[in-house]
Amino acid sequence: MIQDIETPSEEFFNIHGRLLYAPGPTMVPPRVLQAMSKQIINPDLDPDFPNWLLETSRLVGKIIKTKNEVLILPGEGMLALDAALNSVIKPNDEVLVLASGIFGHGFADMVKNCRGKPIVVATDGYDEVLSVEKVKEALDNHPNITAITLVHCETPSGTLNPLKEICKVCQKSDAITIVDAVSSNGGTDILTDEFGIDINLGASQKVFSAPPGIAFMSLSERAIEVINERESIPTFYSDLSVWTKSWIKNRSLPFTHSISDLYAFRESVEIILEEGLENGFRRHKRISKAIIAAGQAMGLELYPKKNDYVSPTVTAFKVPTGIDFEKLMLLMWKKYGVLIAGAWGPVLGGRVLRLGNMGFGANPQFALIALAALEKSLKDFGFQIKLGAANEAFWENY
Amino acid sequence: MIQDIETPSEEFFNIHGRLLYAPGPTMVPPRVLQAMSKQIINPDLDPDFPNWLLETSRLVGKIIKTKNEVLILPGEGMLALDAALNSVIKPNDEVLVLASGIFGHGFADMVKNCRGKPIVVATDGYDEVLSVEKVKEALDNHPNITAITLVHCETPSGTLNPLKEICKVCQKSDAITIVDAVSSNGGTDILTDEFGIDINLGASQKVFSAPPGIAFMSLSERAIEVINERESIPTFYSDLSVWTKSWIKNRSLPFTHSISDLYAFRESVEIILEEGLENGFRRHKRISKAIIAAGQAMGLELYPKKNDYVSPTVTAFKVPTGIDFEKLMLLMWKKYGVLIAGAWGPVLGGRVLRLGNMGFGANPQFALIALAALEKSLKDFGFQIKLGAANEAFWENY
Repeated sequence: MIQDIETPSEEFFNIHGRLLYAPGPTMVPPRVLQAMSKQIINPDLDPDFPNWLLETSRLVGKIIKTKNEVLILPGEGMLALDAALNSVIKPNDEVLVLASGIFGHGFADMVKNCRGKPIVVATDGYDEVLSVEKVKEALDNHPNITAITLVHCETPSGTLNPLKEICKVCQKSDAITIVDAVSSNGGTDILTDEFGIDINLGASQKVFSAPPGIAFMSLSERAIEVINERESIPTFYSDLSVWTKSWIKNRSLPFTHSISDLYAFRESVEIILEEGLENGFRRHKRISKAIIAAGQAMGLELYPKKNDYVSPTVTAFKVPTGIDFEKLMLLMWKKYGVLIAGAWGPVLGGRVLRLGNMGFGANPQFALIALAALEKSLKDFGFQIKLGAANEAFWENY
Repeated sequence: MIQDIETPSEEFFNIHGRLLYAPGPTMVPPRVLQAMSKQIINPDLDPDFPNWLLETSRLVGKIIKTKNEVLILPGEGMLALDAALNSVIKPNDEVLVLASGIFGHGFADMVKNCRGKPIVVATDGYDEVLSVEKVKEALDNHPNITAITLVHCETPSGTLNPLKEICKVCQKSDAITIVDAVSSNGGTDILTDEFGIDINLGASQKVFSAPPGIAFMSLSERAIEVINERESIPTFYSDLSVWTKSWIKNRSLPFTHSISDLYAFRESVEIILEEGLENGFRRHKRISKAIIAAGQAMGLELYPKKNDYVSPTVTAFKVPTGIDFEKLMLLMWKKYGVLIAGAWGPVLGGRVLRLGNMGFGANPQFALIALAALEKSLKDFGFQIKLGAANEAFWENY
């Protein structure tokens, strides 16, 4: 019987590695790791580098369906958020902050930090998605806003906001739309130009499944104008005008780029395009559907209120009553070699568990390993469970 | 005869790679590349990660001889500079800027950008190093300064400022000393604590010879106090109080760290310590001396006014009259597969050529390849030269 099989020792996992099944950083495909181990070139001096980087940014543009400039920055996703807000928002600017979870509300703090004035449109709970009607109302009531922030995939709650519909409403405003699609870019169809997104933010370690260290963003002409017109900001590293003036204008870099991270990121971009965008989106959808069913089959309740709210890149379930999530996570990690995530903060901390079915992780093999480890761990904690039920439900719904 | 040997085609170099001999990013040792190609862990969730990162920062502390906290940041060296200045300097603060070259003067612009007031003490030319006497005078004349900035190795001019002597004078002031030792940390003995440096800034791609993408800095207790006491700054990515509050206080990270870059950086740190600090410093000294002699033997004039001013990590020669540096660089790159650097700006642009004898590059094999390519390229341009003279002088002085 499956429960009699001796699990590997922690030493085994230390040597051979574990499965990352948290919503980013994800496992990195072997091809990407190999690309990363190439000898570096000098990005400041190599005469071929600017073209290669430009080509890379255009390939990213294909994935997020934009003809706009795509900046690729040496830093974590947070750098893209920080740089976009600091470079666009002037002191006392009114900014419409659309918030359906931790990250959405986080934007309000960042806007305040930029000395802007956040006007927050929020959902009642983190298990919901934004109401297009409420956004419309807020836009009518606040005609002077200069920017709108929206988180597409609320990674901590596993929800996906109705981007297309919200953007349609926002297009009537002159405000710069700043969309955090860090956990959805590449995993679901985002038509940046058609939706009218001025700034679409992404990062390497989510659906792209490259190591963390690269952030990117598309910039509409209007966004570039706004960035260039405003007075300089105190920080250099987060000042996008440094990039518009040196990279966009002259194709020269303001400082040394992270070349090994770029090798990895470029390989990830190639992999996404080789698979075909539609194939990738479909793969995420299928995995998501199968994982929801598998989780429910083992007795877990989905965190988002409706299946329609679930992001195809991350699945959040409620932690069953009586289970200490930290202990569950550690058991899965130490005994079964699988890493899943919880969340944090007063609403979600200890209350949800999350599977990161994004990018390289959106495949049946990895999903089933993670589900089996979760099922067995829950049973180890005395949770009523029929081993194998998840597996069966997975395949029935895949 | 050596000049009859057919040089490899550009295709050969495209496939097999070239030698980087610019002052950073340098070639990355195979061990470091291998470390980088390991599957990643999740730095946000892996329970063992904080200890590993702390251990890494303490090993860096051994290299720069400090018991202070060492922050390791996900970004380029510029991030460390930007974050240190923005987090320490308050609007209207008077900052003493010690400037002997492009980077030194650059600090004045960054201080202005932070809304601080730079008081510049400069050398007459970029071929000189700072006068301790002048620094002393400035300190006496400006008792209200809150910070002092100093660039140890002026990479663009290849000079090394008398750090120990300047720091001794600065210790009499309460101001926070911010030292950019990005191109010298690890390559020459910097006793951070003994010299009384509050913030010592470094980066992965110079002497450490890891790929670009990691910045680091030591922070004295006083620096941490100053950072924690001031009001929050608009940027998140460059705000060191975010790191003092989350990493230094709780050993938790404010956002996802660049784990692959950290793998590489850690391996580089281990390599430096395995070699032994004194051995490494001596190696840099020997290579520097031999390269100076080799360059002079091929008829080049050293850019720094005196041999004593030369940094052991980078050697700057004047570009001979009549030679277009851009063309020389491209010839060396395309025909002989070696990358050297020039410099930029009104003082140095087109006027100096630089060899990056730092870190992995500070070895006779690489140095001789670079010197041979330089010698032959100069001859190709009609410069009067006796092939092999550099080689002879190199060994005589090594």
